[in-house]
Amino acid sequence: MRGGSYSLLAPSLGGSSMVGGGGQLGLAGGWLLRASRVIPAVLCILVIASLCAHYYLSKAVGDSVLGHERHLLLDPHDPLSDLSGLKCDSAKARVQELLSIKASVLNELRDLEQHRQQLQENIASASARIENLRQEEGRVKTELERLKTSVEQALLAQQEVFEKNMPQISAPRRITASSQDSVVLPPPPPQAVSQCQMHSCFDYSRCSLLSNFPVYNYDMEQFKIASNDLEAFVKITVKQALGYNAHVTQNPNEACVFVALLGEGVGGAPDRVNLEESLHSLPHWGGDGRNHILLNLGRTFYSKNMFEGVNTGRAIIVQSHFDAGAFRPGFDLVTPPLLGLPGGDLWKNLPPIVPAKRKYLLSFQGELPRLRSYLEKTQQPPPSNPHLREEMAVVEELRRLEHTHTDDRFLLHFTCRGGGGYGDLEEWRMCDTESMRTQVLRESTFSLVLAPPSPQEVTTVTLQARIYEALKYGAVPIVLGNHVELPLSETIDWRKLALVLPKARVTEIHFLLRSLSDADLLFMRRQGRMIWERFFGSTQVLVDSILATLRERLNIPPVPAPEHPSSSIFNDSFVPLKTDANILDPDTDENLGPIEPPFPSVVFSRNYTVALLSGYEQWNNWGDPFYLYPSLPSNPLLPTEAKFSGSKLGFRPINGGSGGSGKEFSESLGGNSPREQFTIVMLTYEREQVLLNSLARLYGLPYLNKVIVVWNSPKPPPEDLRWPDIKVPIHVIRAERNSLNNRFLPYSEIETEAVLSVDDDAHLRHDEIVFGFRVWREERDRIVGFPGRYHAWDLNYGGWLYNSNYSCELSMVLTGAAFFHKYYASMYSHMMPQAIRDKVDEYVNCEDIAMNFLVSHITRKPPVKVTSRWTFRCPGCPVSLSEDDSHFTERHKCINFFTQVYGYNPLLNTQYRVDSVLFKTRLPHDKQKCFKFI
Amino acid sequence: MRGGSYSLLAPSLGGSSMVGGGGQLGLAGGWLLRASRVIPAVLCILVIASLCAHYYLSKAVGDSVLGHERHLLLDPHDPLSDLSGLKCDSAKARVQELLSIKASVLNELRDLEQHRQQLQENIASASARIENLRQEEGRVKTELERLKTSVEQALLAQQEVFEKNMPQISAPRRITASSQDSVVLPPPPPQAVSQCQMHSCFDYSRCSLLSNFPVYNYDMEQFKIASNDLEAFVKITVKQALGYNAHVTQNPNEACVFVALLGEGVGGAPDRVNLEESLHSLPHWGGDGRNHILLNLGRTFYSKNMFEGVNTGRAIIVQSHFDAGAFRPGFDLVTPPLLGLPGGDLWKNLPPIVPAKRKYLLSFQGELPRLRSYLEKTQQPPPSNPHLREEMAVVEELRRLEHTHTDDRFLLHFTCRGGGGYGDLEEWRMCDTESMRTQVLRESTFSLVLAPPSPQEVTTVTLQARIYEALKYGAVPIVLGNHVELPLSETIDWRKLALVLPKARVTEIHFLLRSLSDADLLFMRRQGRMIWERFFGSTQVLVDSILATLRERLNIPPVPAPEHPSSSIFNDSFVPLKTDANILDPDTDENLGPIEPPFPSVVFSRNYTVALLSGYEQWNNWGDPFYLYPSLPSNPLLPTEAKFSGSKLGFRPINGGSGGSGKEFSESLGGNSPREQFTIVMLTYEREQVLLNSLARLYGLPYLNKVIVVWNSPKPPPEDLRWPDIKVPIHVIRAERNSLNNRFLPYSEIETEAVLSVDDDAHLRHDEIVFGFRVWREERDRIVGFPGRYHAWDLNYGGWLYNSNYSCELSMVLTGAAFFHKYYASMYSHMMPQAIRDKVDEYVNCEDIAMNFLVSHITRKPPVKVTSRWTFRCPGCPVSLSEDDSHFTERHKCINFFTQVYGYNPLLNTQYRVDSVLFKTRLPHDKQKCFKFI
Repeated sequence: MRGGSYSLLAPSLGGSSMVGGGGQLGLAGGWLLRASRVIPAVLCILVIASLCAHYYLSKAVGDSVLGHERHLLLDPHDPLSDLSGLKCDSAKARVQELLSIKASVLNELRDLEQHRQQLQENIASASARIENLRQEEGRVKTELERLKTSVEQALLAQQEVFEKNMPQISAPRRITASSQDSVVLPPPPPQAVSQCQMHSCFDYSRCSLLSNFPVYNYDMEQFKIASNDLEAFVKITVKQALGYNAHVTQNPNEACVFVALLGEGVGGAPDRVNLEESLHSLPHWGGDGRNHILLNLGRTFYSKNMFEGVNTGRAIIVQSHFDAGAFRPGFDLVTPPLLGLPGGDLWKNLPPIVPAKRKYLLSFQGELPRLRSYLEKTQQPPPSNPHLREEMAVVEELRRLEHTHTDDRFLLHFTCRGGGGYGDLEEWRMCDTESMRTQVLRESTFSLVLAPPSPQEVTTVTLQARIYEALKYGAVPIVLGNHVELPLSETIDWRKLALVLPKARVTEIHFLLRSLSDADLLFMRRQGRMIWERFFGSTQVLVDSILATLRERLNIPPVPAPEHPSSSIFNDSFVPLKTDANILDPDTDENLGPIEPPFPSVVFSRNYTVALLSGYEQWNNWGDPFYLYPSLPSNPLLPTEAKFSGSKLGFRPINGGSGGSGKEFSESLGGNSPREQFTIVMLTYEREQVLLNSLARLYGLPYLNKVIVVWNSPKPPPEDLRWPDIKVPIHVIRAERNSLNNRFLPYSEIETEAVLSVDDDAHLRHDEIVFGFRVWREERDRIVGFPGRYHAWDLNYGGWLYNSNYSCELSMVLTGAAFFHKYYASMYSHMMPQAIRDKVDEYVNCEDIAMNFLVSHITRKPPVKVTSRWTFRCPGCPVSLSEDDSHFTERHKCINFFTQVYGYNPLLNTQYRVDSVLFKTRLPHDKQKCFKFI
Repeated sequence: MRGGSYSLLAPSLGGSSMVGGGGQLGLAGGWLLRASRVIPAVLCILVIASLCAHYYLSKAVGDSVLGHERHLLLDPHDPLSDLSGLKCDSAKARVQELLSIKASVLNELRDLEQHRQQLQENIASASARIENLRQEEGRVKTELERLKTSVEQALLAQQEVFEKNMPQISAPRRITASSQDSVVLPPPPPQAVSQCQMHSCFDYSRCSLLSNFPVYNYDMEQFKIASNDLEAFVKITVKQALGYNAHVTQNPNEACVFVALLGEGVGGAPDRVNLEESLHSLPHWGGDGRNHILLNLGRTFYSKNMFEGVNTGRAIIVQSHFDAGAFRPGFDLVTPPLLGLPGGDLWKNLPPIVPAKRKYLLSFQGELPRLRSYLEKTQQPPPSNPHLREEMAVVEELRRLEHTHTDDRFLLHFTCRGGGGYGDLEEWRMCDTESMRTQVLRESTFSLVLAPPSPQEVTTVTLQARIYEALKYGAVPIVLGNHVELPLSETIDWRKLALVLPKARVTEIHFLLRSLSDADLLFMRRQGRMIWERFFGSTQVLVDSILATLRERLNIPPVPAPEHPSSSIFNDSFVPLKTDANILDPDTDENLGPIEPPFPSVVFSRNYTVALLSGYEQWNNWGDPFYLYPSLPSNPLLPTEAKFSGSKLGFRPINGGSGGSGKEFSESLGGNSPREQFTIVMLTYEREQVLLNSLARLYGLPYLNKVIVVWNSPKPPPEDLRWPDIKVPIHVIRAERNSLNNRFLPYSEIETEAVLSVDDDAHLRHDEIVFGFRVWREERDRIVGFPGRYHAWDLNYGGWLYNSNYSCELSMVLTGAAFFHKYYASMYSHMMPQAIRDKVDEYVNCEDIAMNFLVSHITRKPPVKVTSRWTFRCPGCPVSLSEDDSHFTERHKCINFFTQVYGYNPLLNTQYRVDSVLFKTRLPHDKQKCFKFI
């Protein structure tokens, strides 16, 4: 009977445990679990499953035991049954009696068992109900928590609005030239033109800080400047360039400065007396030419100072040729000559940046006519002129280099073949044609630039042309002669792209050049290329750079960067249909942050300080000095205590500043910058349902400011499309044409610094987005994305291959789901060479590679990969085009093409990825993580 | 009998499964496991454990069934036994027979069971042996793998050595002044002293690039410079400062420049004729005073240009007062007056940086004597002198500010109380005493600095003193008058710390000041404090800065940064005992990288380029322009293809450049920089066994260059101590005294850029160390560590608290196990204020907080936390002192004290941590992770 008792007890244990165990198991199979949870579960399963297994096994045993018993009692062939076959009737009767008792007991037990099972079922269904209620309670609690923090945040924000609402001071009085009551009298004129400085000769009253630096360009055709038969190229391209410049105004009365384009034409310099008369009769000369800019963009190597002996009054002179006496530092500007294209992409003819070392270590080709006879030894003794004698010594020392016992090769020609070169008699003339010079420069690591022998000539057209060509072809300029003035040296730090040495250092040149590491050398070459491409290379960039330098001198901010109009695809009267979408993220019921009404980022708050505090970096470190951006990826960070002492506006320290994890962490953004939100930009093309599903999933996403849907299809959305109401604006923008570049346009509707670019079929959980956003807030100048990719070197054929394999080193993140600063949208659309955007359109591919190139190019940093995710397609969505082979081939080609455009591959490797601080960390039971799953 | 059969079968299944299951379970409990591995294991355990449990349960059942059987058969009180009590003898015999058969069967079974158990044991021991062998095989294989990659690396390195071994060019010929055969003749002297420029007046032949810039200081007491009764303070402190300057030489023949300290004494300026005569008779004047520096560090506000009318020849003049005509830009230097201490820490009297906004928005206290009568309306009409008229207009416009309808407060006094101030009659004099001015400046957000009315006076002592005081007390200087020359403007970018405006902008000042954000304002204040503290604040730093500026002008590198001598604790003859330590890391049998012989990092490779490419950053961005460092935390990165094209030296791209994970990844360092190693610095104090265990664990650690043990105890190590032989040098350094600061000394024995600082009881696994090293290679300017800590705001009492709780935001990592650049060891020991090191010694605590402060101060970046580790104490080690309460209290105090020293808390928050790229990523079966466990 004891064996039988097991059959009554076992099911009550084993049955329920099977349900629990099975459930746990399914969960564990689903995704990664934490060991601390797995262990107890496993132990529990072990115990229960053992019991359960035991039930079934022992049921078999039990059955067999019962069978055995029955067999013992009833089997007629049993020896004991034989025993009963003996005439032992009273015993038989007793056995019978026992058997009937047993039968009734068994019946009774069967009834009890049925009853028990009934109860069991009732209990199970009641538990299920309770469980449902508990889950519901959890959801409601989380929602309440969210609302609470949201309310708190709202109160804080309200208070801040109140505090911010201080009486604003009015704009300063703008004193225009026409007004009579100048507050501060214009300074008295200096005694001599040569003493002109900004403080003494410039009239600031025309150029208030708020003026935007209006530039008036004289139409010089109207004025008879003697012999001003300027080359048509100069006239046309400069006019064109000024036409594109945002500062140019047609109204001379509001102008801050007046530009007069002058210059020598084919007939040489204009007559000085006539020139002076013509200048003084310019309609806005006003007696002393204040705020006039005389622009002399020579193109011939023979140009001299055309203003010699001319009274230029208070005008600023911009040209390539200056004598020491005539050049007024901080007032006049040295410019490279106008040797380039009118405008447009300039990368096409430039050589690649690598290899660091080229055929020749140093090259020079030139001729100093006055020295030729001495060098050819036809004239002796050495020249009596001390400068020529010095020059002679320099040349002799340089010639020695060609005979040093090293592998270094030199190409040093101090006389020109044929006609003796181009340029003035007093300086080192240019030899050969441009294409012949180009050939040599492309093969030169360094290019020697010999300054004019006379220290009085601080800059000449020829000197500037040499520097220009050296930069263009990647031969780092070695300027020998430290009396030279380099172009736009007010804004450009020439130490980063050229070596300027006194002539006395000629004996040390070889040592110095050999001491440069490849990294430094490549840095200088890259810097030279950047300066050339952005500030010197075409008429457009040169004119822009000259005006920007002058504008910066006045500390007037540039014009705001152009934004892309965000014209809605709906006309004003049409109201799109809406549908409720208040389903919280099904992936997680975490409270990830307060739901606040959308608010924009603070913009244009550094208008008058950016040029001061970051001006150097903007000109010399891949910033953009030509435009004023609403915000920049790198801003100075406040001291950490400022948020508790006077500067708390917008800051949301974790737990009020005392820090924490779990709930406290999720309630506040924390970090080193004030609170902010992000904008989602979603490109879509003819798959409405995928789009709508993606949009609906954004309901309740904290820190989301707005969703911008870029409708790339020419067909407008059907009018009966029901847009999910996700409580933040969804702005649907009509794309002008179907282009992947639309993903990165700086739409005017983007009101936050942070942009989250997502594909319409990308599936990210809310916690992943919020964590990505928090990371981006620390790495504002980088792309912060999820799946990583890399550029691999093709070991067989050289060149680059795109690679999407799992890898421990990556150099790109996909922009199908990535955060970046709005500034980079501007850079992508306006600063990046057009050829790259064209290639993206040609292949309908590679826009993400282009963005990764751009940001790594500007920052010299790799992107940031967050969380363990390697893909983000939604499970049921149609396979996107990124899967097929041709797509991959195109991406290989893109990398190599972009490399050609930049002159090098700017991608950089990274071997790490970023997780939340307590991810997969074993915590005490009373502690919470930062996020549940990531 | 069927029941009994279970007892024979079950153990054979259950017994072995217990071993397997138990093993798995122990593993799972140890740390986080991957679900894909856990699930099959769990299933397996389930099946096995069930069977096993069944065995025991059913054994119980079986026993009871057997018992029952026995009972049935033997119990004399059983009814069936009663049955046998009847006289049924033949049956009884049969039963007896059956029972004896049964007994023999049972015996047989028992024998069999014993035999089976015997076999079972044999099988188990055989399995264990096989398992051991397998493990051994794995170890050997890994070791082989390691050796293979090590051999490959060695071959590569050998090849590189060969390639590197190019004929080096010899050092350039150094032409000293004494040698007669000057290669390049010194330039002819300029016509007028006023035209002196470096190229025309300076003799470079005395100052070769390799010369180290030797400075000879005249002992001016020897020369009768008329009325040179300089203040004793100036004489003594300058002499002292020059004594500490590394460039000063006693040998005038090798000197590059000659310094003559002059100046007005209490008796006023020396007589000009006498001065000229005295100068010309200086022993090394050489007729024209070339390479002479006339240092006039005035301290009185009345000082004028003492060299007016004096023929100073080719000498460079350094002083605070210059007229426009006398100042030669790029040649002379403007210096702030000598108003500070002789040297030492300067932070003590400086106000904190926050709050951004102080009581007064703008303050000014001064008097222009010539204007007083007009301002007091005692004289009318306005002055006829145009400059005074302009000044009058400026003052009137400024006075208007005090009546604007805003909350902004102004303190603007244009006349001095009492005596009318100190300074020249022609300029804005200083009012009151320094302490009274200090009071106002401490309460001023901005401080107005009015330039002298005459544009001819480009700088005066009073002007410089105003700027000096404004910077010192954190009132951002607003210089009105853009004709002024600012001190050391050749190296210091004044746009980052002061607003210099033309006087015409006076109407826009209020608007401009109000437009500054708190972040920008605090940036400028912090920058001003930095410039003041590092370049102006004491005689020592001022003298150093002047010489450094001149040195940089010549492009001569500074002297190498001092390193700390690493004197071994053993004398030369003593050979420490060694013991084998070839036990691989017990925590992991991963191949983490090749074991290569130690090689040093490349050092001093940018001697001539650092100042060019990073000079701006060194002066203006918390670099150190005073010393040449073997390497810096930030170097330019090569383009990624350079390593495949001409610059492959030292690069170890992953899988030759094609990338990968697992084995390929572990074989090469990859990344953006060439291969390198790191040095472990381990501080120890009187616990030899803990130390030796830690050392032994380092055996086989890839990329380890050397271990430096800092023996902080005064007792030398026992001679019989057996040091583990870990195949890299262990260098034991005798600390001069027991100090935690010894952890961060820049020991000369550290030959790598990367330093891993570890406590002697810190327990890190090899994979963690290697990953940390890889991360550091990408974040070379940050501290890369393991456990994170943070600074929390004390919500009750204000001020900072140290916090070691689990948190999602951190701002420090413990240096008990952290990588940092050797440069920061120099910064910690030499640039960081002494008060901080003193505090560390006082508390025997906080050295890690100090290091985190320092690096965040320099970089404005938070540290990097890697992996999920939150502690690194070895399990059995004695509890360190860091656990008790007083230790914590001290750490609170440290944070607040350090904040006071820096003027702000430089710590920054970070909300992420860093893992290897494929950590916790589900991979296909044929893919490997980057590391097995992290």
